[in-house]
Amino acid sequence: MAERAGGRWQLGVPVIVASHRAPVQFRREGGRRIARRGAGGLVTALLGLVREIPDAVWVCAASTEEDAAVVAEHRGKAIPIAVGPLPRIADPDAHDEPVAAIRMVEIDPAAREDFYSVISNPMLWFVQHGLYDLTRAPNIDEVEHEAFEHGYVAVNRAFADTIAEEVESRGGRALVMLHDYHFYLVAAMVRERCPDVVLSHFVHIPWPGPDAWRVLPPHMRDQIFAGLLGNDIVAFHTERFARNFLLCAQELLGLPINLDKMTVQYGPRTIAAKTYPISIDVDALEEVARSKAVRTRLDDLETWLAAEGGKLIVRVDRTDPSKNIVRGFLAFERLLDDHPELVGKVRFLAFLQPSRLDVPEYVEYIGRIGSVVARINAKYTRGGEAPIDLRLHEDFLTAVAAYSICDVVMVNSIADGMNLVAKEAVCVSRRNAVLALSENTGAYEELGAFAVTLYPFDIQQQADALYIALMMPEEERRERLEAAAEIVRANNVTKWLDFQLTDLAEFTGLWSWKPTRSS
Amino acid sequence: MAERAGGRWQLGVPVIVASHRAPVQFRREGGRRIARRGAGGLVTALLGLVREIPDAVWVCAASTEEDAAVVAEHRGKAIPIAVGPLPRIADPDAHDEPVAAIRMVEIDPAAREDFYSVISNPMLWFVQHGLYDLTRAPNIDEVEHEAFEHGYVAVNRAFADTIAEEVESRGGRALVMLHDYHFYLVAAMVRERCPDVVLSHFVHIPWPGPDAWRVLPPHMRDQIFAGLLGNDIVAFHTERFARNFLLCAQELLGLPINLDKMTVQYGPRTIAAKTYPISIDVDALEEVARSKAVRTRLDDLETWLAAEGGKLIVRVDRTDPSKNIVRGFLAFERLLDDHPELVGKVRFLAFLQPSRLDVPEYVEYIGRIGSVVARINAKYTRGGEAPIDLRLHEDFLTAVAAYSICDVVMVNSIADGMNLVAKEAVCVSRRNAVLALSENTGAYEELGAFAVTLYPFDIQQQADALYIALMMPEEERRERLEAAAEIVRANNVTKWLDFQLTDLAEFTGLWSWKPTRSS
Repeated sequence: MAERAGGRWQLGVPVIVASHRAPVQFRREGGRRIARRGAGGLVTALLGLVREIPDAVWVCAASTEEDAAVVAEHRGKAIPIAVGPLPRIADPDAHDEPVAAIRMVEIDPAAREDFYSVISNPMLWFVQHGLYDLTRAPNIDEVEHEAFEHGYVAVNRAFADTIAEEVESRGGRALVMLHDYHFYLVAAMVRERCPDVVLSHFVHIPWPGPDAWRVLPPHMRDQIFAGLLGNDIVAFHTERFARNFLLCAQELLGLPINLDKMTVQYGPRTIAAKTYPISIDVDALEEVARSKAVRTRLDDLETWLAAEGGKLIVRVDRTDPSKNIVRGFLAFERLLDDHPELVGKVRFLAFLQPSRLDVPEYVEYIGRIGSVVARINAKYTRGGEAPIDLRLHEDFLTAVAAYSICDVVMVNSIADGMNLVAKEAVCVSRRNAVLALSENTGAYEELGAFAVTLYPFDIQQQADALYIALMMPEEERRERLEAAAEIVRANNVTKWLDFQLTDLAEFTGLWSWKPTRSS
Repeated sequence: MAERAGGRWQLGVPVIVASHRAPVQFRREGGRRIARRGAGGLVTALLGLVREIPDAVWVCAASTEEDAAVVAEHRGKAIPIAVGPLPRIADPDAHDEPVAAIRMVEIDPAAREDFYSVISNPMLWFVQHGLYDLTRAPNIDEVEHEAFEHGYVAVNRAFADTIAEEVESRGGRALVMLHDYHFYLVAAMVRERCPDVVLSHFVHIPWPGPDAWRVLPPHMRDQIFAGLLGNDIVAFHTERFARNFLLCAQELLGLPINLDKMTVQYGPRTIAAKTYPISIDVDALEEVARSKAVRTRLDDLETWLAAEGGKLIVRVDRTDPSKNIVRGFLAFERLLDDHPELVGKVRFLAFLQPSRLDVPEYVEYIGRIGSVVARINAKYTRGGEAPIDLRLHEDFLTAVAAYSICDVVMVNSIADGMNLVAKEAVCVSRRNAVLALSENTGAYEELGAFAVTLYPFDIQQQADALYIALMMPEEERRERLEAAAEIVRANNVTKWLDFQLTDLAEFTGLWSWKPTRSS
């Protein structure tokens, strides 16, 4: 029996969430233990989830020495965490804050390196985003075969064992919600030990068609599919990815699929491929946008813009090749080439957080970004003002300030599971920003109708689209922005969770009650 | 009414074939006109086709100055060609040789450059074989947009006009068989002018899923699909490619498809996606294999092998990045690393015909081939004998000799529409060669069961597979080879044609008679 009371779900069944990244990371600084919130949109979404479900357990990786110390202090058991905006170890005397338990899984550093820096981040990420230069890479070798076996499989096994322990300690029945490309093998492992469990796996990155998966040797791809087919639901951000998953099951494994019902038959079990577009916590974001910290940054930007009387294009990304940052700058250069009257009038502010510096392609990509920016700035700097303002560090508050007063937000990804920047920007814009959005983002399924579409491999088209966006009449800008913001507000991140829990309840027959959404 | 008489088809309807390459190319050498046979497996297959169909017209490109002179001499009309093994202008007094008419389309050199060297060969070929390093290329720009419009569209229009002229001169009804990636737009153009025509288009290269086509700007991909949907049948070498075509029509164009019947609905018309694996002319090949020229080359190779007492791996390819030549050598190196006892005992003979030297990636690829071969030969040359014998020129006769006495034939393509090397080799082997075949070749659907499978991105797996192939017991080698050769012989290239004509007859309702295959 499931119901929502006081804004929280009453599921009547234990919920176990698993992700690689933890909601909180511990460090020792100046002799004191510091708790820092885990980064990224997924942590935000899952924090929302565990906040709404009492007594949820969150299984995640211990990644620092201080994490390990915390685990040791709790003798390997679950750690109660207050899951407010800044998560920390719960105060046992405070009863008014939502608490979740986290189980941090300690991983041998060598296995972690293989799991994370050989398989997950380069190989799976590259396959699923189509980033390999296939005439050169991958050259799969003993290194990758070993890393799969002793890294990816081993870490998935460790997580599966921990999850199974938690399930068993709750009597063998639980709802397990696995997350992302780090843990494709876990579901089948958990199901084997705990046959009464209900399992779902959410894939937060693109799922390409069968051709792309043929890059992996069959024993790897077969294990990945067999692992995922251990679930009851495999979930994606878009219909396209869900369809691709089923088409892969059909073509690579020869399984019967049903594209109307979006299911695949695997032995006696039917697995559903579902679509739940993830979103942002709109209220929390709007609170940040109203904060003094953002207002200060806004004033700085506004002074600058007013002095220049110009227009502002903004992008906010990790320095990931999938984000298509270099072509974005090339399109901006083409815009200035084609419209010399804009030189000195349009500025491109790029917040690019360095990412995955353990992967050589990422280091090289930062170099390529710097190279193209230097060339364009050398060509188009006027009166000491460079057209591109490149900021290679995370600065969320300034980014939010920039969203709120920019004219155009550029998102031109080669491939992108969702892209939350697009959703954030349309919610906080105060200047009727136009969203220039790649057709290859997950967000495009929801927001494409109100955006200026970008075709990520076409420099000229992107330049033309930026021009259209910059020149769009105020009334049209306003209408598009309002429509987009309305969609994001209506599909807030709590909806993302509600739909999943509703489907899991229906699908598994564990619960008969259909919840209505609280407003 | 269609029937086969005296080994030739009587279709009762004119047949027009179109391909970019001509069956014969004219050159002037020492003041004399020389006719040379057009290169490639497609010309061989289409020569078989026009030989079997009386009065067929073959529309193709004039590509030399002498071609243009021949066209002028025939005042732009069709040229009668004797379509024997060495095609030439037909002798009007000889009545015992099969004759086809060719219409050579003259193309403005600038348009041809755009059509061939900007759009067809780099862009469409790269998209369909998945060869782009998407973080770097393509950077689609004015150059490509202009080249599509003034090259690809213009040349397709010129071919469509010529074909329509031929159709109209025959009263408006004809069977038109278009070939390959050069002419995706032609069918719709011809249909518009000649609504009573029956059209088929054969795509000889891989057809990837929707993800890959998103690399092209929508106006290009939309025109390509709209063009192909002008056909009654769109044909491919494998089920996988045909399915991908339908999935693209559904996902990129929103058209209703039927994967059981393998059709797509386009307005009032139903288009069928069909599969006809192309093959070789087995009789002709066996004749070549028995020829004195091949026997001489065989003797040379045998002497060398006997002196060395060793084993021979052979590959025969154009120097196309899709052929995965560099990884093939890396796998061979790994084989020698893992099995030092084979050093000096196994030789890799690579016949690599330089290809498309107007495309920078191809020039660079030859450099990479040379680099890896030099490194491996420096490492493993013993007693003055280098392990890799790299021959960068076409030498079909020596290749046939090598097929017949090698121990292993390596075909490890990244992507390959069919790959006729695999089919040739199993037909002429006299030493029970093992076929080591990439799962990503079209040929794998027919021959995979009898081959040692290669996973093209996995160096270690390919090395292991080469070892298994070299060490396979004689009895197993014989059984596999015989089974593979039997399949190729049973699906001779004439079958390829028969199935198509039978389907076209059934599909269009032009003919009621179902032909039986002559043995």
